[in-house]
Amino acid sequence: MNDLMPINLEKKFSAFTDHWEPKIVARMNGYDLKLVKFQGEFVWHRHGDTDEVFFVHKGEMSIFFRDGVVRLRQGELFVVPRGVEHKPAAAGECQVMLIEPAGTVNTGDAGGEMTAAADVWI
Amino acid sequence: MNDLMPINLEKKFSAFTDHWEPKIVARMNGYDLKLVKFQGEFVWHRHGDTDEVFFVHKGEMSIFFRDGVVRLRQGELFVVPRGVEHKPAAAGECQVMLIEPAGTVNTGDAGGEMTAAADVWI
Repeated sequence: MNDLMPINLEKKFSAFTDHWEPKIVARMNGYDLKLVKFQGEFVWHRHGDTDEVFFVHKGEMSIFFRDGVVRLRQGELFVVPRGVEHKPAAAGECQVMLIEPAGTVNTGDAGGEMTAAADVWI
Repeated sequence: MNDLMPINLEKKFSAFTDHWEPKIVARMNGYDLKLVKFQGEFVWHRHGDTDEVFFVHKGEMSIFFRDGVVRLRQGELFVVPRGVEHKPAAAGECQVMLIEPAGTVNTGDAGGEMTAAADVWI
């Protein structure tokens, strides 16, 4: 039998240092599992056509909404519903796994200089 | 502002003790994030219409294929491609998060007594 390799999040996170630039580690049915490091404040934006899962692998982060906030720690997740404006932020570095359709752009409808390529694998 | 509650995997896993019975903790775009505890051997089966993500939250498990095996530890994940026959197993208890379309049945095409309801939330 062949030994297949799992995807190890710790190893994948150790392979990059930039912030706010999601990297794809796996794809299922056209959905991407992406790793990203957050630090500081992102831009307000929305994804008009998709929900978005945030899962914290390490560290702490917040997702601000116009009328609320959710604070996430290691081992916690939250689903941002489609169309809902939000702004991720993290005081210290936070390691996050995102789940969203392939091709989803990090800044959604907002665009701007924090927009990252949506098709980078690591 | 309202403080929203994240989904804490540790708390969710501590809320049930049964094995091989996935519980939904979140839904995004019609996909479910399900928690399940594995112990022992599951049945050989396939899902003809969907890939399936296995992410290990705690413990160790294996996914056997007809021509190979992948061994997963905490913080590791693997995508089983649609149509590929597989058999999950774990020597000790293993806590796993599955990602798959809502309604996906755990035993796939195999059926049998290990088949669990696909719509149980926790």
